[in-house]
Amino acid sequence: MPRIAYLGPEGTFTEAALLQMVAGGMLPPGAAAGPDRDVTPLPYDSAGGALEAIRARDSDYACVPIENSIDGPVIPTLDGLAGGSALQIFAEHTLDVAFSIVTRPGTRAADIETVAAFPVAAAQVRSWLAAELPDARLVPAYSNAAAAQDVAAGAADAGVSTALAAQRYGLAELAAGVVDEANARTRFVLVGAPGVPPARTGADRTSVVLRLDNEPGALVAAMTELSIRGIDLTRIESRPTRTELGTYKFFLDCVGHIADEAVGEALKALHRRCAEVRYLGSWPTGAAAGAPPPEFDEAARWLQARRTGGSA
Amino acid sequence: MPRIAYLGPEGTFTEAALLQMVAGGMLPPGAAAGPDRDVTPLPYDSAGGALEAIRARDSDYACVPIENSIDGPVIPTLDGLAGGSALQIFAEHTLDVAFSIVTRPGTRAADIETVAAFPVAAAQVRSWLAAELPDARLVPAYSNAAAAQDVAAGAADAGVSTALAAQRYGLAELAAGVVDEANARTRFVLVGAPGVPPARTGADRTSVVLRLDNEPGALVAAMTELSIRGIDLTRIESRPTRTELGTYKFFLDCVGHIADEAVGEALKALHRRCAEVRYLGSWPTGAAAGAPPPEFDEAARWLQARRTGGSA
Amino acid sequence: MPRIAYLGPEGTFTEAALLQMVAGGMLPPGAAAGPDRDVTPLPYDSAGGALEAIRARDSDYACVPIENSIDGPVIPTLDGLAGGSALQIFAEHTLDVAFSIVTRPGTRAADIETVAAFPVAAAQVRSWLAAELPDARLVPAYSNAAAAQDVAAGAADAGVSTALAAQRYGLAELAAGVVDEANARTRFVLVGAPGVPPARTGADRTSVVLRLDNEPGALVAAMTELSIRGIDLTRIESRPTRTELGTYKFFLDCVGHIADEAVGEALKALHRRCAEVRYLGSWPTGAAAGAPPPEFDEAARWLQARRTGGSA
Amino acid sequence: MPRIAYLGPEGTFTEAALLQMVAGGMLPPGAAAGPDRDVTPLPYDSAGGALEAIRARDSDYACVPIENSIDGPVIPTLDGLAGGSALQIFAEHTLDVAFSIVTRPGTRAADIETVAAFPVAAAQVRSWLAAELPDARLVPAYSNAAAAQDVAAGAADAGVSTALAAQRYGLAELAAGVVDEANARTRFVLVGAPGVPPARTGADRTSVVLRLDNEPGALVAAMTELSIRGIDLTRIESRPTRTELGTYKFFLDCVGHIADEAVGEALKALHRRCAEVRYLGSWPTGAAAGAPPPEFDEAARWLQARRTGGSA
Repeated sequence: MPRIAYLGPEGTFTEAALLQMVAGGMLPPGAAAGPDRDVTPLPYDSAGGALEAIRARDSDYACVPIENSIDGPVIPTLDGLAGGSALQIFAEHTLDVAFSIVTRPGTRAADIETVAAFPVAAAQVRSWLAAELPDARLVPAYSNAAAAQDVAAGAADAGVSTALAAQRYGLAELAAGVVDEANARTRFVLVGAPGVPPARTGADRTSVVLRLDNEPGALVAAMTELSIRGIDLTRIESRPTRTELGTYKFFLDCVGHIADEAVGEALKALHRRCAEVRYLGSWPTGAAAGAPPPEFDEAARWLQARRTGGSA
Repeated sequence: MPRIAYLGPEGTFTEAALLQMVAGGMLPPGAAAGPDRDVTPLPYDSAGGALEAIRARDSDYACVPIENSIDGPVIPTLDGLAGGSALQIFAEHTLDVAFSIVTRPGTRAADIETVAAFPVAAAQVRSWLAAELPDARLVPAYSNAAAAQDVAAGAADAGVSTALAAQRYGLAELAAGVVDEANARTRFVLVGAPGVPPARTGADRTSVVLRLDNEPGALVAAMTELSIRGIDLTRIESRPTRTELGTYKFFLDCVGHIADEAVGEALKALHRRCAEVRYLGSWPTGAAAGAPPPEFDEAARWLQARRTGGSA
Repeated sequence: MPRIAYLGPEGTFTEAALLQMVAGGMLPPGAAAGPDRDVTPLPYDSAGGALEAIRARDSDYACVPIENSIDGPVIPTLDGLAGGSALQIFAEHTLDVAFSIVTRPGTRAADIETVAAFPVAAAQVRSWLAAELPDARLVPAYSNAAAAQDVAAGAADAGVSTALAAQRYGLAELAAGVVDEANARTRFVLVGAPGVPPARTGADRTSVVLRLDNEPGALVAAMTELSIRGIDLTRIESRPTRTELGTYKFFLDCVGHIADEAVGEALKALHRRCAEVRYLGSWPTGAAAGAPPPEFDEAARWLQARRTGGSA
Repeated sequence: MPRIAYLGPEGTFTEAALLQMVAGGMLPPGAAAGPDRDVTPLPYDSAGGALEAIRARDSDYACVPIENSIDGPVIPTLDGLAGGSALQIFAEHTLDVAFSIVTRPGTRAADIETVAAFPVAAAQVRSWLAAELPDARLVPAYSNAAAAQDVAAGAADAGVSTALAAQRYGLAELAAGVVDEANARTRFVLVGAPGVPPARTGADRTSVVLRLDNEPGALVAAMTELSIRGIDLTRIESRPTRTELGTYKFFLDCVGHIADEAVGEALKALHRRCAEVRYLGSWPTGAAAGAPPPEFDEAARWLQARRTGGSA
């Protein structure tokens, strides 16, 4: 029964994502032991801690958020993937951001004087609260799940939390699907020790971290290795390296799988060109996330014919 | 007396950065009215709110954080600069992250049972607290300044806050310069309505936001306009656009000033090539942040001689 | 009355091209002295000699062939432009290759036993001769004009020559417009000492010679300075440099005029990047020879507005 | 006994090159039948004719000049390789240009009144003749070998020809190694029907002809496929296509062998990108002609390890 660390405590969006990934059969082959797909979830108090648990062999996998459409990249996840020994991403899952306003059973809206909320969540439901609970006072909590715990403990009348947390802590949902901004979404990834990537599906994502020599043009030259092969770059983030001032690591996501010839050739080229390439994995995205890499088969046959004196 | 909105409340690192920028004469010409460099600081509860205050003409400038070496880009600032009507950056200032542990005067370490902290700050002083105040319990606060307010109000025994907040709220500093990670720094920018950029100093930064057509290679082509002219790209961030799924805006920082011929030529090229270029400004960085753009003067003279039939 | 050296002797295609250029008013302003456009043609026995005559101030201009659709680049012309002191091209003119079969007046086809021909010309009328004069024997001549001289002198019965030579040497044309290959054409250029280029017409050609550092990618980098600015490269030739083994000079022709902003910017970039750039001129082509360079005006206005704080 | 067409008649530099290639064992495996390396040389009156003989199965191979350091590319050879059915180059050989002044045995310099010469050759020994035979009159011949034939037939007193021709036609050499310009050299290639390229030696040349879509940047994009892989481009020639005005074919030579991974990958990329790629072969150059292609082995191992979950 595989152990899966996650950004806890119980009831976070991350745990919800993890449970959906398990239920959807998205674990790597060999990870989901039986027909009941049982796993042992292990809550950690940070994304970095969940990733370290794999390195310490305290966990087999980790489920962590990597990108949020409102708040951008999740820095502790990026740093945890880029530093330390190699890890690999095997799956991803995206959740709409949708908070539940949780109360102890029997609480009515009119009774609510205090609302516990993680500050980031509070910012995302500000308009809703102003409209629906205009007289309530916000009190900070340390996470979305902690907001529910505070409500359960009587420290607040209501909490900005998740449906899963309501269930976990025996709370009622005064409202569900609450969020000010439409289309807010968070993407989560399932990380493990390096291994065989999941099979190519035709709708895949490949991710790498590059460390480049500190000279003008080095990044463009690296990215050209993707563009010249028709590979669609879907995300790029620069992060300062911690060892040297003014130097950066670059996180690149592209459409395609390491088993695609175009992607494999580009990865080889990056390996030759860059000071360091860390391969973060290739995994299915379910739906296409951009233009798929071109087929290289016909050109390979043409080359083979030229090399062997055949005709094609 | 110019009004300057900032990410408040009083006592935040942002206010500290603002005061240092004013004291250092870093306001644009015309902004600092008299010899005493008086300004009217206006606290706002979000970076986005501070930027909007300029657009609403409620403020002349805004001081907001834009990048943190630990947490990465400050997304609300990037989004506030990229959306809405045009704004422009006129100056920057970088502060070492260094918290003060504040108490009511007379409080001894042994008396401290609760420590108020903004969750992001709590994560950055965790080791220090474990070593120095191992028995204290963390209670969340809504900002570094709010942590000090909580202490002043008696809701917590100590707070993870700033030296400025201690001064503002009549508190003592039990410890100063507290932070777990060495070299943690935050960069702040001074933003205003579009205008003449500050004069070129030879150590300048130029920043743009690009919106690109959604095709493989568009980003590389845009970045090549910088690299082919020897311009050093120092930062790149991708941010999803909110209007269309799977499309991105890109924030690029480079070394140099719009008055540098190389930079001017590159900006023209980006304007021709990209679906949209928003110029965020050129301003001094104090020290060089990378390789300066090459001189184009000799080539310009050579061209002029060819055009006019002279010799050079 | 300007002196114009040309590849002689009298009666060559080059002289014919020169006369048409003079009649068409294609000389640079100031070169065509009076209303009768009188010039002094000076025959030279090589293209290189005609170009040297300008440097020796023995001639004001030179008319030489530069490219033939069958035989390719005219190497002595390219070498004469690339070496020695700088020269500049001011005009071009293209002639269809069309030989005249010349005889002494009264000669009938049936009488022709020998045909004088410059070997290159012989190769271009071989099929015609086989069909029309199957029994005639070829005798070599040193130029198309010399073939006519041989006929006039009685050394051959007929000659493969030009209409102009027939006229010059008092010969009859047995046939005109003779050539095996359709669409064979030769391009001629008018060369002088460096000076102000002819005014931009919107259908112009610009030509340069590049000497590059001997490293992989140097040529691509130089050509990218054209392509990234949307400039259409219409011809490229590599020629070994004579001073160093394995190094090349490159002749590049592009669409556009040095007065076009895009072309001017690209020339500046080449001047910065290349070991040496020799500007060979910008001149009208009459009809468009490819895609014209893009307009840079709008981007220049945009940049100016950003630099001065205006809006555009 | 393989038949080898060559640019004749007997006694040309091309025949000399062919004999040296045969003596040096430079024929493809299988072509040189026995220990005596016997071949059947077949003279043709043009390079194009020699190449066509392969297509007509009248010859197994053809030896033709492809490049001359003074006169540039040999256009009929380039056109013969680029058009018609596919041919392939299997070997190359370079000869110093060095003429022999041939006479009938017993002729003294003082007796020489006429000198037969192919016009191209005449241009290359002009200074020598002016110094050594100032009173002799030039008479044109149709080839270097024909000049010797003219001498043997008594039509001229001396000829500008080759050592091989002197031997073939029973003539004496008044002078050998005659040429005005130092370092003049001609490169010859051995061409056959498409087949397995000669084995990689580490000092090889690969040649292709590209037909490109008629749009700005197409050539740069193609050449970038070589430069981005560290492949050294040693020659480029543009030739107008005959089917469409203003369109070009490009002849590219690079260092390396189709069996080199870098070259193979680049050829595949060209095949994908270009309207048409004609592979002209990979063959040994004897000495290195530029920077050899980089090794791709280490990157291939790295990729393989990532694909299979191994470590490397």
